[in-house]
Amino acid sequence: MTKRSITLNCDMGESFGSWRMGNDEAVMPWVDMANIACGFHASDPQIMSNTIKLAIEHDTQIGAHPSYPDLQGFGRRSIPMATEEITNMLIYQVGALKSLAESHNAQIGYVKPHGALYNDMMRDISIFDAVADAVSCFDVPLMMLAINDSEKHLDIADKYELPVLFEAFADRAYLSNGSLSPRSMPGAVLHKEEDILDQIKQIVHYGKVRTIDGFLIPIEADTICVHGDNEHAIKMIQKIRNVL
Amino acid sequence: MTKRSITLNCDMGESFGSWRMGNDEAVMPWVDMANIACGFHASDPQIMSNTIKLAIEHDTQIGAHPSYPDLQGFGRRSIPMATEEITNMLIYQVGALKSLAESHNAQIGYVKPHGALYNDMMRDISIFDAVADAVSCFDVPLMMLAINDSEKHLDIADKYELPVLFEAFADRAYLSNGSLSPRSMPGAVLHKEEDILDQIKQIVHYGKVRTIDGFLIPIEADTICVHGDNEHAIKMIQKIRNVL
Amino acid sequence: MTKRSITLNCDMGESFGSWRMGNDEAVMPWVDMANIACGFHASDPQIMSNTIKLAIEHDTQIGAHPSYPDLQGFGRRSIPMATEEITNMLIYQVGALKSLAESHNAQIGYVKPHGALYNDMMRDISIFDAVADAVSCFDVPLMMLAINDSEKHLDIADKYELPVLFEAFADRAYLSNGSLSPRSMPGAVLHKEEDILDQIKQIVHYGKVRTIDGFLIPIEADTICVHGDNEHAIKMIQKIRNVL
Amino acid sequence: MTKRSITLNCDMGESFGSWRMGNDEAVMPWVDMANIACGFHASDPQIMSNTIKLAIEHDTQIGAHPSYPDLQGFGRRSIPMATEEITNMLIYQVGALKSLAESHNAQIGYVKPHGALYNDMMRDISIFDAVADAVSCFDVPLMMLAINDSEKHLDIADKYELPVLFEAFADRAYLSNGSLSPRSMPGAVLHKEEDILDQIKQIVHYGKVRTIDGFLIPIEADTICVHGDNEHAIKMIQKIRNVL
Repeated sequence: MTKRSITLNCDMGESFGSWRMGNDEAVMPWVDMANIACGFHASDPQIMSNTIKLAIEHDTQIGAHPSYPDLQGFGRRSIPMATEEITNMLIYQVGALKSLAESHNAQIGYVKPHGALYNDMMRDISIFDAVADAVSCFDVPLMMLAINDSEKHLDIADKYELPVLFEAFADRAYLSNGSLSPRSMPGAVLHKEEDILDQIKQIVHYGKVRTIDGFLIPIEADTICVHGDNEHAIKMIQKIRNVL
Repeated sequence: MTKRSITLNCDMGESFGSWRMGNDEAVMPWVDMANIACGFHASDPQIMSNTIKLAIEHDTQIGAHPSYPDLQGFGRRSIPMATEEITNMLIYQVGALKSLAESHNAQIGYVKPHGALYNDMMRDISIFDAVADAVSCFDVPLMMLAINDSEKHLDIADKYELPVLFEAFADRAYLSNGSLSPRSMPGAVLHKEEDILDQIKQIVHYGKVRTIDGFLIPIEADTICVHGDNEHAIKMIQKIRNVL
Repeated sequence: MTKRSITLNCDMGESFGSWRMGNDEAVMPWVDMANIACGFHASDPQIMSNTIKLAIEHDTQIGAHPSYPDLQGFGRRSIPMATEEITNMLIYQVGALKSLAESHNAQIGYVKPHGALYNDMMRDISIFDAVADAVSCFDVPLMMLAINDSEKHLDIADKYELPVLFEAFADRAYLSNGSLSPRSMPGAVLHKEEDILDQIKQIVHYGKVRTIDGFLIPIEADTICVHGDNEHAIKMIQKIRNVL
Repeated sequence: MTKRSITLNCDMGESFGSWRMGNDEAVMPWVDMANIACGFHASDPQIMSNTIKLAIEHDTQIGAHPSYPDLQGFGRRSIPMATEEITNMLIYQVGALKSLAESHNAQIGYVKPHGALYNDMMRDISIFDAVADAVSCFDVPLMMLAINDSEKHLDIADKYELPVLFEAFADRAYLSNGSLSPRSMPGAVLHKEEDILDQIKQIVHYGKVRTIDGFLIPIEADTICVHGDNEHAIKMIQKIRNVL
């Protein structure tokens, strides 16, 4: 992996009906991968279609960003479901986005589970299995975004012959074992521009990240997750882009 | 068209979460086409998957039965939407069902809009256009179910090169112009077994139907819509099947 | 009615889950009546509770702003419902807000139907009756906000002994018959600050409004509806407040 | 407590839109307390109103049966929420039902949380506190239904001066500590009519229950929860009624 291969991915299409969230028009030109919400935690068919068109205009890769069914909680709440239900729920959402993309003569390239579902699949290997099962059953080859967390996860992905893109986070502190420090821990989220850019540089140039307790550990990153919630965040994306 | 080509289609997968509706297990062996709800007026991803499996077992053709977004009203309430919204809403639902079918190595074959959307598309040619636009944009050839109502509708279908299957109703009285008599009109719904079977026989053997005011008019039917709500309805399906 | 009695009312609590709408904190000090969404087109129990607390802090009267069940369409889409369903749907929403207000030792004072429901009740007297039925059945006396549109509406309100507050609009052009000019008509919405303030002055000082075709007609207004969607709108509210 | 004071309570109003669940008409004459769903896991304003009318006809006490917001999961899935959100969500639902009852000149008498929320409040004292906070803030005195599980729960109820009715279950096996044996444990649910009636008799006549491992422990029960899902269940209710 060379530094040129590291991409930026960003959550998109997170408006819903009359409610706006994010500034997709401003962010889209600066990122490589658009994680588009699929209607279960945000978005609706019209917003999905508009977001796909915007991604096509800027030659940004389209990915599905499916979630637990939870508009009110924005997909940030774990909802207990049987693994088979999770698989079918993901095929439903990814299939809906895929067909909308195809109606614009485009194709989706990957799936990144959202919010609580993302955390749950990293924590619970049976949920990761249910997700991988869903992502691997489409008639186009899809990749999955995940943290490079454990051998067990990679074994599951291998079972489904599913390519995994490893994701790193620009503004989150890491633990020594390579997983993210929980948000409840002091210092878990980086706020200073300098700290964020330093972390990006170390990841990109040296394949390393400094943990919350001061150690340098190796990190494998194919793509970096950025946020476009406000004007400051968008300027930050441009600076991170410059580092890459 | 010979009488052998006339099929039976039935709405399926109309349960939702813990609520049951219909008896799909009992009906599936007797019908040719399963119109499967797509989660907007009924069904959810798990129920859709189970209904697809049941259809595959009985070699029943799978169709999408999309709707306005209205669980509480079961899709029977007209919801004003821009035509572009309707198109995207249908691609979303049909795409979701299509991917679930593909996950079982099956394919959907047609789309039949549900409830208020079906009535609206027969009444308003711009809505029919929005529906036809959606149905024709998939990467597999899909047919559309509709009443053979007007030249204008057929012109739209032609514009999208969309094959239309004409649908007749076993238990609904017709007006002289070939459209269904409104439910509010006395005699609009046939209740007697004898009347229903007579109507089916005339449609199947003579390509005619007797209108609510006593005239015989020609009717073109590729498929007949039946209902499987209760035990009586299921016996009725078997008798209609015998006529065919 | 003296000019001192004219109040300002504004839609509030229109956020939902993680989505923000409006700037209630900035608007609340400048208006007399807060029309709080009840969870069917916007808001949720937590947002309703927070908005009630904000209204109490600023001594703003609390009103219920119930709607058709339509989060995605923000209550702007007419949904066909039986009148009994409308009545029960309103008792549900108003009752929910009333109990939340009571939990803060406050009380609601009025009901203003939202969006499509407001338009429908002005257009269809049977819907106005269903709304009035709901509003009049609470154990505290509630007022209803409506346009002073027709004798028939007032007769219904009398039947339920329901006090009606007549509402005028700061930024909407009127027809000669006293109703609002439809949004589709050119000039239906006033955009210039000067035009809006002129309209307010005429309503407040002379009880008249200039119609879209240039006539001066009488208008009876107890309260004026203003909007707080953005910084400009909030400054406008302050200028309207100065006129009052 | 004498045996005459033991009542039967049953979940009611669990239909939703076009979907039916339970047979409230058949059950209502046989039970003392109707736990009516409030629209978050089942029911809608029209069904709530109809169920209230049915309870009034049969002189059955009306109780609110609020839930996590989860129609698809029927309120059986734990949804992580802040305690303040739980309190407001309950005031919303109970307030809605209360106002519908008042519109029929009736009053609600108690609150029984539903499904996952019921389990969560017995397991997590902070959730019980949030529920008790909601139930105690109404302008009529409401009781709460709960299992007589721990001193800590009773201390919370005392803090809010909230009367608690202790609930026992006709068809669930108990652990030695007085709590229900988890459904995953073999023998957790009693299926034989004889076993169920024996359990009821011991509770009613001796204030005791035989645990899943064969001990007799004391149990305090003011009311017994029964189910009315099908014809068999309704006959069972009549037999339990005879024991009382």
